[in-house]
Amino acid sequence: MIETPSLVDQHCHGVLRTELGLGTFEAHLGRGEGPPAPGTTFFDTQTGFAVRRWCPPLLGLEPHCPPARYLARRRELGVLEAGRRLLRGSGITTYLVDTGLPGDLTGPGELASTGAAQAREIVRLELLAEQVADTSGTVDSFLANLAESVHGAAHGAVAFTSVAGVRAGEALACEPPGPGEVRGAAGRWLAGRQVGGELADPVLLRHLLWIAVASGLPLQLHTGAADPQCSFGDFARATAGLGTDLVLLHGYPHHRAAAHLAGVFPHVYADLGSALVRTGARAAAVLAEILELAPFGKLLFSSGAQGLPELHVVGAQLFREALGRVLGTWVAEGAWSLTDAQRVAGLIAAGNARRVYGLVGD
Amino acid sequence: MIETPSLVDQHCHGVLRTELGLGTFEAHLGRGEGPPAPGTTFFDTQTGFAVRRWCPPLLGLEPHCPPARYLARRRELGVLEAGRRLLRGSGITTYLVDTGLPGDLTGPGELASTGAAQAREIVRLELLAEQVADTSGTVDSFLANLAESVHGAAHGAVAFTSVAGVRAGEALACEPPGPGEVRGAAGRWLAGRQVGGELADPVLLRHLLWIAVASGLPLQLHTGAADPQCSFGDFARATAGLGTDLVLLHGYPHHRAAAHLAGVFPHVYADLGSALVRTGARAAAVLAEILELAPFGKLLFSSGAQGLPELHVVGAQLFREALGRVLGTWVAEGAWSLTDAQRVAGLIAAGNARRVYGLVGD
Amino acid sequence: MIETPSLVDQHCHGVLRTELGLGTFEAHLGRGEGPPAPGTTFFDTQTGFAVRRWCPPLLGLEPHCPPARYLARRRELGVLEAGRRLLRGSGITTYLVDTGLPGDLTGPGELASTGAAQAREIVRLELLAEQVADTSGTVDSFLANLAESVHGAAHGAVAFTSVAGVRAGEALACEPPGPGEVRGAAGRWLAGRQVGGELADPVLLRHLLWIAVASGLPLQLHTGAADPQCSFGDFARATAGLGTDLVLLHGYPHHRAAAHLAGVFPHVYADLGSALVRTGARAAAVLAEILELAPFGKLLFSSGAQGLPELHVVGAQLFREALGRVLGTWVAEGAWSLTDAQRVAGLIAAGNARRVYGLVGD
Repeated sequence: MIETPSLVDQHCHGVLRTELGLGTFEAHLGRGEGPPAPGTTFFDTQTGFAVRRWCPPLLGLEPHCPPARYLARRRELGVLEAGRRLLRGSGITTYLVDTGLPGDLTGPGELASTGAAQAREIVRLELLAEQVADTSGTVDSFLANLAESVHGAAHGAVAFTSVAGVRAGEALACEPPGPGEVRGAAGRWLAGRQVGGELADPVLLRHLLWIAVASGLPLQLHTGAADPQCSFGDFARATAGLGTDLVLLHGYPHHRAAAHLAGVFPHVYADLGSALVRTGARAAAVLAEILELAPFGKLLFSSGAQGLPELHVVGAQLFREALGRVLGTWVAEGAWSLTDAQRVAGLIAAGNARRVYGLVGD
Repeated sequence: MIETPSLVDQHCHGVLRTELGLGTFEAHLGRGEGPPAPGTTFFDTQTGFAVRRWCPPLLGLEPHCPPARYLARRRELGVLEAGRRLLRGSGITTYLVDTGLPGDLTGPGELASTGAAQAREIVRLELLAEQVADTSGTVDSFLANLAESVHGAAHGAVAFTSVAGVRAGEALACEPPGPGEVRGAAGRWLAGRQVGGELADPVLLRHLLWIAVASGLPLQLHTGAADPQCSFGDFARATAGLGTDLVLLHGYPHHRAAAHLAGVFPHVYADLGSALVRTGARAAAVLAEILELAPFGKLLFSSGAQGLPELHVVGAQLFREALGRVLGTWVAEGAWSLTDAQRVAGLIAAGNARRVYGLVGD
Repeated sequence: MIETPSLVDQHCHGVLRTELGLGTFEAHLGRGEGPPAPGTTFFDTQTGFAVRRWCPPLLGLEPHCPPARYLARRRELGVLEAGRRLLRGSGITTYLVDTGLPGDLTGPGELASTGAAQAREIVRLELLAEQVADTSGTVDSFLANLAESVHGAAHGAVAFTSVAGVRAGEALACEPPGPGEVRGAAGRWLAGRQVGGELADPVLLRHLLWIAVASGLPLQLHTGAADPQCSFGDFARATAGLGTDLVLLHGYPHHRAAAHLAGVFPHVYADLGSALVRTGARAAAVLAEILELAPFGKLLFSSGAQGLPELHVVGAQLFREALGRVLGTWVAEGAWSLTDAQRVAGLIAAGNARRVYGLVGD
């Protein structure tokens, strides 16, 4: 038996504070740009089936009970009690919480107390820049405040995260933009912007990334749907040796390319959480693929969960089961020793994250 | 046991009417731009081995008997009787037949009577345009006749299919070309064209796609060998919400990207047939990969067969065996309930196709 | 049981002649652009674990013993005796040796005698061109000597290999450069070059590839990290029918695309060695994926090993075990006949390489 007593969820979000109807709950199971197609439901996905497998027992129901029955029980317990039972049943001991999503989500402190676990904050760069823009009167003050905010955030947080690669692929360029270019872009963006307006300017996104790289804090990058080999290889090469670690999020279905990059560049790491949550019954198969190329010291567990504590549960349960099955099979076949397998399991579940994020006391 | 009593083959072609020698038969097993390499044969492929596994018993022979023995028996029975035994042994209950391939292939009616099944027509857009060009004297009459033909075809057919993405990737653009651009392209194409000449002009292909989108009939798109994420993502985004469903054909080896798109866009569906026929003994593994990301209401069985009824047989047998094995394993592991597995099997085998193509009476 | 009595390693390199410390040995297990990340080691990879599984028993130790223990035993035996035990334990009967790597590596003759096997040379085009440049005084003599050297090398070697696709992707173009273009590029390169300087000029790389194509000798192409569908498809189409075979090396993680191309083009072959060495405990799964699309007459075993005889051992052992497991399973399931499985195993292990490289007497 492969054991993982500690589990550091190295990238997740908070959970919703309000009671949920069937439709809102279902919407959080989809990954799409719209509602389910007519005649279909997001419950009919690997994520939906995995939620129905793992979560009902934590609320006292049979696995695979109908969604309406599960939601009724969830409301009966209340969102707080249901959340407590789910998060505490997940086995996650430390949450690293990306606080950059909109919506009424619990923060790190509340997640920690509800889940009886540790929690630390991950700061999303784009949201930080938008907040700075909301309170800065001029281009000069915006740029000065931006640099100060990033460096200030680096003290309290364990990592930065960025969606620059998703908003504008060209932001992942080989070098920072020049000062004049940055000033011009800032002027145009601030002039055309309403309070709360989203940062999608490639030059400013690039500027922001390179400020973050200079901070030395690990930087988590959302890779979007593109092959990270193409979209990310040059940025990885340009940032090698600068002392800042990069963590590739959400590689699936390009998880093998992400694993390859983690093998090529000393400062690049691969996340595996959401690949498992999205593929459910296939989690062991997908995990095995990631374990082909990634050095075992370069892989980090996460749930990638947002909004529903059910997704934290599913991320953790699928990971533990998949890891036990994959490594257990290799031990049984004689390909790995049991000692090595247990050591590697501990690295992926918690040890690598502790080392990369400096979670000394956790 | 997972059962699939009905089987709608949502994309296939007719079968050859003539007796076949070993060489012609072998040529239909290849997917290449040329003959087999010296010293090799297309029988030594997963498709070749799958045909030798599943088809000889339907003609009274042992599985895996030598190709020459099989072909001799086939000729002994005659092409009609062999076709009848094979198609009726496939278990396919409805064929949706793309009639746009050249060659002396049976149409939907003949396929239905030979196979004791239902059949409906899928109209290939490019062939339709080429036929309109053969009979139109001027640019004006060509463009008017084209629009009329597409809308006319939409009444009798269950779907359109297009190879625009294979002939000219840029045809899958975000918006229809302007009227002047279309007139210019039509003039140039008609002026340089012989009767029967192939349509490969990107502007006209694009024009044709957007006429078809306007018809509201489901549109099947051959994706070619490129990653559909790159080649097809923009077209999917541009056609979202217009009320026309898109079905991605032949995603393999990019089947995971196709499944991902089916999860992202409500109007996008993924076909799985030819991925199984091409991979034979690996069909269950490939099917399992497709089932990672695609919502279960967005996947459609097909054989993709053309020319040889053996390919309809192999497509259906591999699908049924693979589906039973994959879903059966998940039920045995407790990841899925048996009820859910049976329901999902019915959706992929027939239910989704009935809903998308409106096959009410079949 | 699937047997492979002969094993032709169709692409490998020589081994180091000097005693190795732990750090140097470890460096040869990585594939990266730098050292292992702080706190990690390249022993914690599939390749590292596979070496620890297969090699200690050949030196009289327990599988999975600690790296330091293994290295101590290796030094105790001496590099010559350890190399002899390892290579002779690999089961490889013929080595095709790419002699184009820098460093003090054994050549084909020494590899053959150490391993009690046959060996033949593969000539690396870029090194040949660099050597010609070192001894040619003028552009005219360089170009004449280059053509002569390639044609001369074609007599003694069994194949050419090229890293043009890795050094400059655009070198894999559809046609040779014109004479004026070549003369200009040669003049610029020679003028700016020191003795031993590397050839990375796209025009000269392209010129070199097309000279090699004209020689008729099989040409092995390093595909780099890009999807070969994109980077290599046009070159394959342009060289079809010219009578020269192309062998795609190192397709992983794009091995399915490489297998696809081997199915599409009669003159294109796929190599599978390094995919297995890099993925270790997953070798059977990766081999099975390659066997989906590649015609069985188009796949060639190799170890891709360089520097450490341990990598030749691991390449051969993983291949034999993976092949036995994958084909054995298909036979047990009834998907393949045992006769076919044994025949295909013989083709991939040795028969295809003998045919492609004309290894008549081996």
